[in-house]
Amino acid sequence: MENNGFGELLELLAKCNFPELRERLEKMNEVDIAEFMEGLNQEQTLLVFRILPKDISADVFSYLDSDSRTGIIEAATDKELHALVDDLYLDDTVDMLEEVPANVVRRVLASTDSQTRELINRFLNYPENSAGSIMTIEMVELHDRYTVREAIDHIRKTGVDKETIYTCYCIDDARHLIGSVQLRHLIMADEDDLIRDIMDGMDYLRYVHTLDDQEEVADIVRKYDLLSVPVLDNEDRLVGIITVDDIVDVIEEENTEDMEKMSLLKPSGNDKPYLKTSVFRLAGNRIVWLLVLMISATFTGKIIENYEALLSGMVALTASIPMLMDTGGNAGSQTSTLVIRNLALGEVTARDYLRILWKELRVALICGLILGVVNLGRMLLLRSGTLMECVVTSLAMVCAVIVAKLIGCTLPIIAKLLHIDPALMAGPMITTIVDAVTLIIYFSLAQAILM
Amino acid sequence: MENNGFGELLELLAKCNFPELRERLEKMNEVDIAEFMEGLNQEQTLLVFRILPKDISADVFSYLDSDSRTGIIEAATDKELHALVDDLYLDDTVDMLEEVPANVVRRVLASTDSQTRELINRFLNYPENSAGSIMTIEMVELHDRYTVREAIDHIRKTGVDKETIYTCYCIDDARHLIGSVQLRHLIMADEDDLIRDIMDGMDYLRYVHTLDDQEEVADIVRKYDLLSVPVLDNEDRLVGIITVDDIVDVIEEENTEDMEKMSLLKPSGNDKPYLKTSVFRLAGNRIVWLLVLMISATFTGKIIENYEALLSGMVALTASIPMLMDTGGNAGSQTSTLVIRNLALGEVTARDYLRILWKELRVALICGLILGVVNLGRMLLLRSGTLMECVVTSLAMVCAVIVAKLIGCTLPIIAKLLHIDPALMAGPMITTIVDAVTLIIYFSLAQAILM
Repeated sequence: MENNGFGELLELLAKCNFPELRERLEKMNEVDIAEFMEGLNQEQTLLVFRILPKDISADVFSYLDSDSRTGIIEAATDKELHALVDDLYLDDTVDMLEEVPANVVRRVLASTDSQTRELINRFLNYPENSAGSIMTIEMVELHDRYTVREAIDHIRKTGVDKETIYTCYCIDDARHLIGSVQLRHLIMADEDDLIRDIMDGMDYLRYVHTLDDQEEVADIVRKYDLLSVPVLDNEDRLVGIITVDDIVDVIEEENTEDMEKMSLLKPSGNDKPYLKTSVFRLAGNRIVWLLVLMISATFTGKIIENYEALLSGMVALTASIPMLMDTGGNAGSQTSTLVIRNLALGEVTARDYLRILWKELRVALICGLILGVVNLGRMLLLRSGTLMECVVTSLAMVCAVIVAKLIGCTLPIIAKLLHIDPALMAGPMITTIVDAVTLIIYFSLAQAILM
Repeated sequence: MENNGFGELLELLAKCNFPELRERLEKMNEVDIAEFMEGLNQEQTLLVFRILPKDISADVFSYLDSDSRTGIIEAATDKELHALVDDLYLDDTVDMLEEVPANVVRRVLASTDSQTRELINRFLNYPENSAGSIMTIEMVELHDRYTVREAIDHIRKTGVDKETIYTCYCIDDARHLIGSVQLRHLIMADEDDLIRDIMDGMDYLRYVHTLDDQEEVADIVRKYDLLSVPVLDNEDRLVGIITVDDIVDVIEEENTEDMEKMSLLKPSGNDKPYLKTSVFRLAGNRIVWLLVLMISATFTGKIIENYEALLSGMVALTASIPMLMDTGGNAGSQTSTLVIRNLALGEVTARDYLRILWKELRVALICGLILGVVNLGRMLLLRSGTLMECVVTSLAMVCAVIVAKLIGCTLPIIAKLLHIDPALMAGPMITTIVDAVTLIIYFSLAQAILM
């Protein structure tokens, strides 16, 4: 983020001292180089990219933001393009192609051989957020008839271009996955051992299919502490792997999406960063839910109109409406968030519903009673209305908290059963429903007790 | 979660066919074995634990939930305890000790040698959520004067007990970290190369200190796609490493904590799972914020009381209060969530405040105007009040959305500057403030236009 630390590099660049600049960059982490380049103008970015040692330039490229990437691609010669695509992992090439304009895509594809082009096209066809769309094909495959010595020789010969060599996958002649072996076990094993004797079999191994959702892949990697997970096609042949560093990004992306949904934002997905998104796009992501909930608030308005006579005489009742509604909304969103998060992490399932309901009922009773008593004291102290008005408000408070918490744990579970994302049932959505119920309880109590 | 797949294992257990059971377990993933054991009663758990092949029992133990762990520890003989602690990674031992009762801690410590005991005590003293508290000491250390051949021999000899051997750390004679080397580079390198010539130096390497917060560690692992990160003491000596699988857990924990704070829940941290938490504990985590916000809602009540005369004549004004408050709250929480999330992921910093404010102002204008117009149409259509009452409500709507969005982006940034967690400034907190401001704007407009 900050430009400190890059001062000397900028000076070398300004002085056109490229040999020294190159030497400095050579020692740096690719992520830091990308960060340095993102602070430069397009011309300088291209210049620095051309200075970079060939063995790290593809890595640096994969860490650049999409504007810098597009700039480099558009200005690159065909020869440079070819070399770049050759050095990039296939998943990074595909990521890049999804971001750049169509004419650039055509240039990139033209510079690749027909086999790569076919692979790229297959990748571009995997559904968004599927395992196929985030996998890479650069994995180590071993035959189970290899000895450990042969396996290590094979890795030495082919491993330099692989995304990871730490988990190697064992396949039979039809490319079916039959096991895996960790490099650490290869290193520790006797050189004459057969792979088939030391590999972990399919009972042990976890794998996914190309069309599985990336969230399921993340769950498996998290649960089994994996460094990579193999991806199979629909005939159970090994077609790729997904590494843990990509899963870390998936986890953050899914969490962002959940938080966005919980706050009524249309998930931005892999979109541009906030500061680069246009205000119309931002407004578009927000307006739909705001409109829907505003219009549903028509009900609360109608309820109030119905009790016009009741309210006109007692200002204390009207004055308590915001407090009752807010407290109900807060109590409901506490519960819905807990349930949504526990569902997302697999800590509870829809089948636990009755246990959750019973727990929340008791929690609601405790919270509701405390809030009711404190509210009674507060209103009496501030002389906000007659004794009976204070009692009615406090009773309504207890009921509102109970109802809010029961609705708060029920809606996410119903959403789960209907295969809707439970995250949509968080705070604001619940608030609108709780508001209407709270007002009805409140006015009914008032009518019964005060009239 | 589900017991399917474990049916045959349960049958073997019921039939006391232990040799067959052991054989089946031997082929299974440790995570699945732990899941199977969590479904058993305490006696059976212990039985299965004793059947497990010795080389996987510690791994299985580290995946068990805290009830099952405590059960095993309490029933284990001193000899079993000693063997278990010997096989566990130190960080798992420490995790376990933090969960079991004090008398069990004493028994475990009594069964370890004095060196391990001292290490455990040091770990127990690291602050919660610090890098020191989540690191492990089982890493591979190489001297920079080794050749590649010597390094691989060293790894073969000592690597079996290490948590990871894929990134090896290079130290000098005073144990200062001076570089790192990936196992993949060792495998590819010439056997006579010197480690010092092929290692990545300190310009390239990323590291943390024992007292750094685990969130900072997670940021580094995510940004640099690391498999492990070295931990240094305050004299820059290498004392441990943190592996990516533990970081994945930290990321989920921090996300859960953020969501909890955003919904006014006291973060549960490493507590028991929801279904096992007592209702009093759950109620305690929620009541404080509910009380605070309920009492601050006194202001909104007072505002309404002040405008008693205005409201008593016009029921349409009262009927629109919930809708205005909800829409303002929703608009505010959309913005605050976006800003909180972008701050957490490092996409924006407090220095971007003016750019965010300017963007949100324009977004608010677009959303506010659309909502205002739709609301005007809706109220006129439903004949909810006179034309002027409908105009006042719609104008108030526009103002409320603008104010809510500006407050929604300002509070998280202020929190960040004051070193308070911005997540505390989300929906419910903002709603309470927005409510009061919205009502004041609403009634002032009404008084100016209608009276």
